[in-house]
Amino acid sequence: MSSNPQIIIALDAMGGDNGIEPNVKGAVIAANSHPIRILLVGDKQKLNESLKGESYPDGSIEIIHASQAIGMDESPRKSIEKKPDASILVAARLVNDGKADALVSAGNTGTVVLAAAKYLSRILGVRRTAIATVYPTMNEFKKNDHLALMLDVGANVQCGAEELAQFAIMGAAYVADIRGVENPSVALLNIGEEATKGGEKMQSAFQLLKNIPNLNFIGNVEGKDILRGVVDVVVTEGFVGNIVIKTLEGAARSLRQLTKMAFKARVAWRLGLLFLRKGLSLLQEITDYAEYGGAPLLGFEKMVIIAHGRSSEKAISNAIKVAGKCVRDDVCGQIGKYIYELEGKAGLEYERLSREL
Amino acid sequence: MSSNPQIIIALDAMGGDNGIEPNVKGAVIAANSHPIRILLVGDKQKLNESLKGESYPDGSIEIIHASQAIGMDESPRKSIEKKPDASILVAARLVNDGKADALVSAGNTGTVVLAAAKYLSRILGVRRTAIATVYPTMNEFKKNDHLALMLDVGANVQCGAEELAQFAIMGAAYVADIRGVENPSVALLNIGEEATKGGEKMQSAFQLLKNIPNLNFIGNVEGKDILRGVVDVVVTEGFVGNIVIKTLEGAARSLRQLTKMAFKARVAWRLGLLFLRKGLSLLQEITDYAEYGGAPLLGFEKMVIIAHGRSSEKAISNAIKVAGKCVRDDVCGQIGKYIYELEGKAGLEYERLSREL
Repeated sequence: MSSNPQIIIALDAMGGDNGIEPNVKGAVIAANSHPIRILLVGDKQKLNESLKGESYPDGSIEIIHASQAIGMDESPRKSIEKKPDASILVAARLVNDGKADALVSAGNTGTVVLAAAKYLSRILGVRRTAIATVYPTMNEFKKNDHLALMLDVGANVQCGAEELAQFAIMGAAYVADIRGVENPSVALLNIGEEATKGGEKMQSAFQLLKNIPNLNFIGNVEGKDILRGVVDVVVTEGFVGNIVIKTLEGAARSLRQLTKMAFKARVAWRLGLLFLRKGLSLLQEITDYAEYGGAPLLGFEKMVIIAHGRSSEKAISNAIKVAGKCVRDDVCGQIGKYIYELEGKAGLEYERLSREL
Repeated sequence: MSSNPQIIIALDAMGGDNGIEPNVKGAVIAANSHPIRILLVGDKQKLNESLKGESYPDGSIEIIHASQAIGMDESPRKSIEKKPDASILVAARLVNDGKADALVSAGNTGTVVLAAAKYLSRILGVRRTAIATVYPTMNEFKKNDHLALMLDVGANVQCGAEELAQFAIMGAAYVADIRGVENPSVALLNIGEEATKGGEKMQSAFQLLKNIPNLNFIGNVEGKDILRGVVDVVVTEGFVGNIVIKTLEGAARSLRQLTKMAFKARVAWRLGLLFLRKGLSLLQEITDYAEYGGAPLLGFEKMVIIAHGRSSEKAISNAIKVAGKCVRDDVCGQIGKYIYELEGKAGLEYERLSREL
């Protein structure tokens, strides 16, 4: 083991559609490729069995027992009440107690959000946490880095202009670190480009964002711009972001279905599809990203990554790596710094005192 | 001329990105294929020139002079104030005066909505008008009829639960007539299927819709369901609908771009694309529908069809035909009947009296 303080990730090893297998294998991949320590949280016996025969650096993986697990289809609110020893809750407590630096789970999104809200502290000044999704854009497909971020995609239903402004700051801080973009561009998702579009809330958000120093706010973008890659961070409220991201996932799925139909329908098409396999795999990326990238839940003092329920071992290992990178570069601290600058000392002092009372 | 009372459509012949040409040619196509009379509203001299050499049944096309025209990029509100003799306003007045039965325009959507609001009466009981978009669904691609309707896509920004319920009724009445579906299924666009999803407004809308007699309300659908074709009418508020429709248009455009890139990139891909041409043309349909179908503006006593700015002559002729069909089958009257049943006599009587005062 390295003498440096090692980054420790708590992994909800029971989360996801495919049980512990992709979680354990994903942890092994991550442990073998990065100086990271992973706490596998879940059923000790099953995890031990699953780990048998796997090789990884000494001490890089540790099993932490949790006697319960919350299924993907269970009601988040009820199951959290009923199962205090569920793996996601044990993992969240490990992070809260300082025994791990970040939380990764492929469990039900609502459950992860509630578990984090139950045990983790929001960054001082952050009004609402937000789920961000990384997605590929088309316009810059040839470039190495063609990713963008959208938030909120469902931590909240509605929110106000101030929350939207904070989402912009959190998204920009995350993208700056993870993508290494120096001053990421940020836009509001709206029904037109003009500052007057979208009703009172969007107008206020526009004005707030315009006046944040050092934020590269480029104005409003429309639905048609989302995939074009004209902006690094797309800000919207959870209701809209959730519907947009699912619409895109649905479109990509429909496309795959169509190509399958085409494959069956005509011999000539089948030939064409074989030739086109590589081209079509580019399209596949749209949905893959939802599964592969992992969605950061931003606004807590510790980093939380929500991996897709269908996560493969590769997706889990990637989520662990992303969490580790966020810890190493102190993304949460960066967000806190920017929020502090936005909200001002007085407001935060008041919030700190209220929390202490 | 037929001795039956003929259906008369007022066409804003100056509207659209491509000037009067597609409007005039579209009118000629419609006049030659349907027992419809078209009032071409716009610059008399230009329209006369454009009509030269075209053949159509005697009396089926008449030019009505309008000395002004509103450009696609002009501010709707200001230009309507400044140009009282603009073609769209003259056309709307013709409808209001009973000289035409329906209005068709490929002009700026905002301008058409404001022109209609200025001269046409809302159906008694209708709180807000709504723009509906017909779009193709993938799941039922093999069937002859694979279309669905989404509304509102931008007549309003936000609205309440009662307005959403009315949108459902208006959309169902339109789809029942235009598609001939007997009891079209209707759903709310939401972030989850459960009745409790989406916050207070969506919960109220769900309950209102559930209790409308004779409405085939199937509950909530999510973004991923939009293209699947699981429902005939998707109800949402204008802000969300506008963003979703534009997101899909953007996705289809990105796809075309990608296939072009693939075409250039590899000889093998080029061969594949040639073989696949027919298959890819199915995908093209997604954006084509936005341009081809024309969007009904529902809630006025007279039918208004907003054709896409990029409309071809075929799209214009189609919009005229759709408007004619709506008039023939009294879609606006049907909507009025359903709204009457929903809102009850007392409320409508009160509204009627308020309007008269």
